[in-house]
Formats: sequence, C-alpha cells, structure tokens
Amino acid sequence: MSGELLFGINTVESALTHDAKNIVELYIEADSHNARLKELSERARDLGVKPHSRPREALDKMTGGARHQGAVARYRAPPPRTEKELYELVEQAQADTLILVLDGVTDPHNLGACLRSAEAAGVTAVVVPKDKAAGITPTVRKASSGAADRVAFFAVTNLARALKTLKEKGVWLVGLAGESAQNFYTLDLKGPLGIVMGSEGEGMRRLTAESCDFLAKIPMRGGVESLNVSVATGVALFEALRQRGR
Amino acid sequence: MSGELLFGINTVESALTHDAKNIVELYIEADSHNARLKELSERARDLGVKPHSRPREALDKMTGGARHQGAVARYRAPPPRTEKELYELVEQAQADTLILVLDGVTDPHNLGACLRSAEAAGVTAVVVPKDKAAGITPTVRKASSGAADRVAFFAVTNLARALKTLKEKGVWLVGLAGESAQNFYTLDLKGPLGIVMGSEGEGMRRLTAESCDFLAKIPMRGGVESLNVSVATGVALFEALRQRGR
Repeated sequence: MSGELLFGINTVESALTHDAKNIVELYIEADSHNARLKELSERARDLGVKPHSRPREALDKMTGGARHQGAVARYRAPPPRTEKELYELVEQAQADTLILVLDGVTDPHNLGACLRSAEAAGVTAVVVPKDKAAGITPTVRKASSGAADRVAFFAVTNLARALKTLKEKGVWLVGLAGESAQNFYTLDLKGPLGIVMGSEGEGMRRLTAESCDFLAKIPMRGGVESLNVSVATGVALFEALRQRGR
Repeated sequence: MSGELLFGINTVESALTHDAKNIVELYIEADSHNARLKELSERARDLGVKPHSRPREALDKMTGGARHQGAVARYRAPPPRTEKELYELVEQAQADTLILVLDGVTDPHNLGACLRSAEAAGVTAVVVPKDKAAGITPTVRKASSGAADRVAFFAVTNLARALKTLKEKGVWLVGLAGESAQNFYTLDLKGPLGIVMGSEGEGMRRLTAESCDFLAKIPMRGGVESLNVSVATGVALFEALRQRGR
C-alpha cells in the first residue's frame, strides 16, 4: 500500500477536516470504548471516508509501536506547492504578508512546534530549503497538532533565490541571529515581513544571513546562549503580531 | 550506586560548571576522538572531579541505550529548596521579581523547554506543585540545555497557599487562559509579577485560576486552539521583559 501514515486522534482528525479527499484508508481500533474514536468514525463517514475496524495489535504493527490512540490513516500527500503559488500568496496578502523562513530546522519536533506557532500567528506561508530541512513527516504532523496540514508550506530548491524574489515583491527580511548587536524589539515589524530563523546548533547559513535586510537578536538575561528554536520563533512571530495591531 | 544519572555532553558540562561538588562519579567514553569529550575531561580535572574511562558499551548499559554522547555522570541532587527561600528571593528581587508558575506541565520535554526559556528571561524563580508536575529528571535536564541546574526551582506542597503568600508579598499573578476575553498584551506587566501557565490539555486547575489577579490570553489568528505550552511561556515571559525595559 502506498501513502504516508498518519496516527493519533488529533492528527487524523485534522487531516479529515482539512484534506479528507487525500485520506486513502482509515483504520479505527475495534472494540475501543474511547468516545472520541466513535466521533471520529462518524465524522469520517459524513465526509465520505469509510473507517475500517482493526484490532489494536494490527494498528500497533502498522505504526511500528508508536502511540496511535486507536486512529491510523493512510494519506496521499498533496503535490508540493510551487514557488509561483508562494508569490501569488504574497501579492494577495500585500501589507499583511508575514512569512516564516526556517533555514535548517531538521528536528521534526521543532519543525512541528514552529508550524503550530506559525499557524497560530496566521502566517501567509512557511518557507524551507528543500535539501536542508525536515520534511512533513508523521512526527512533524503530530508535533504540529495538525497545523502541518493547514499552513501554506513551501519547500524551495534554492532558498537564497526565493528570498531574493520575496524582497523584489517588497517583503522585508529580518533574520534572528544571537550574535547580532541589533535588538529585535527596536525594529519596525509592520508591513510585508519575513522572519528568518536558523538551525539550533549552527544558526542560518551565510548566504541566508546575507539575504536578510536586518539581523537582530532577542535580548536575553540568563546563562543559556539561546532559546529553543520553536520558542524563539513564537516570540518573534507574536512580537510582529503585537506591533501590527494583531 | 546512588545518585541521579546525567548524560549528554551539554548536560554533564552544565552540571560540572554549576554544581561540580554534587557530581559523585564521571564516566567518559574510552578511545573516543570527540574533542569535546577531551575538553570535558580536562575541565572536570580542573574542577576536582576525576573522569573515569569506560567503553561505549558500558555507558550504553548505564543509560539504558539513551543517547549519551560519551559523557555520563552520577549526580547527587542538592536538597530541594524550601518555600522560605522562595519568599527570600522575592524580597531581594523586589520590583524585578518575575516568577514562572507551571501548574501541571507533566511532559518532561515541555518542562525542560520552559526552564530554558525561564532562564533566558532571567526569572527569579520557577514554581511547580510537587504532586502535579514532572520533576527534574535527566530528560528534563537535557531538554532544558542545563537550565534545570541553574534556575531557582521550587516544588511546593500546596500551590494555592504558595500563590497566596506570593500575593501577600506584593506579587501580581497573571494566568494564561485561552478562554479568557482579556488580551494579555493590554496588561501592565511591570513590577513584581508571576506568570501562571496551565497544562497543555486541561489548562490550570480551578483553585490556581482563582488565585490569579488576572486571567488573559495571547490572541491568535489560526485554527489551532493553543500554542505549545513552552512556546506560550516564552511569548509571555519575553513580552513581560519587553515591557519592563529588558
């Protein structure tokens, strides 16, 4: 059987809600007394997806022992979005454009948490380099609480070129870099904006940093050198929202 | 052998730096070519801790297969801090008091990330209820990048009573609650402040919410009902820092 595996009640529910047509098969634990699984089955039927009953052991086997809460789906991921769509979204959003660029966030839990924050902040799009980032795996999807199925996610071949095009479209790019002397909070974050984050260990690549209009840091007080990348992403996105009058 | 197990280069390094006297034994992988392990051994000797060479397999066995990067220590956790010390810290910090209260954050990765953010924000103390929170386990310590050894952490027997005492000492308590109508960003976060977070699934307990002077929410735009608790904690703490003139 082909298709990606989704599991966990929230994850499967989110895929059903946002992308039922791409759910190829749905398996629900037989004889479970979990009311949420019952609801999920009814929801699926309403959306034209037939749930199949399977013993818990069969589901355990499918997920290789990962925690599935009685809900497993085979999912045919929609074709990746083209860069052209990214620029169309920017043109539509105009001054409201808020883009999150993640250069080298390879940990799936961190990527998932970043997507969750990005959705909560109502971003226009999330952009990652195709070769240097974690893809949308089931772990990412689960860590994102389903946001991975809802945010406009673009994996681009050449990040520096995409950033250049975004700048040509009027987007200002602010890169978060702990070694910068510029205080992030003193920047004007209104208007079309891209927030660029590097990887936890190594920060962003040189070419990415050079593509930014500004580099700035979130000033800290303690002994740790940095925040978790998903926390820093949340802090930066929500400061932008605050300035933009939410 | 008694004592808690610490592992991972950053975690062991942090415990050495901040609390060498409580490291009972230190084991370093034999024949490793990792320069950071060599540095760690030298650092330990300088601090009066003798590193023991052990084959990788022996370390694997100690940690039950968890990723140790060649560095494992037995650690005698310092005695828990008393509530009296908490109130002394508040009296010392006066208007600068910034306390993070975590009511029911049971996931060790989330607790670790919260402690990391708390340290980066320079909090006076982190307060959790003894019976409803994850303790400082090796997983928490690792997820915190060592912040668990550096922030003033208080596990109190009766959270509601501790919050009452904090209020008597002049600390204003703001609870983050998604269901509140109050916008967090409209609050004055200067002066002695406690930020109170609930658990991811269920929020804070009723008695905890009732102890707060204000309940407020971080306004969101997307379809997710909430941010990851460690992201929300970071957003709240850094907004407080911003208002307090950092």
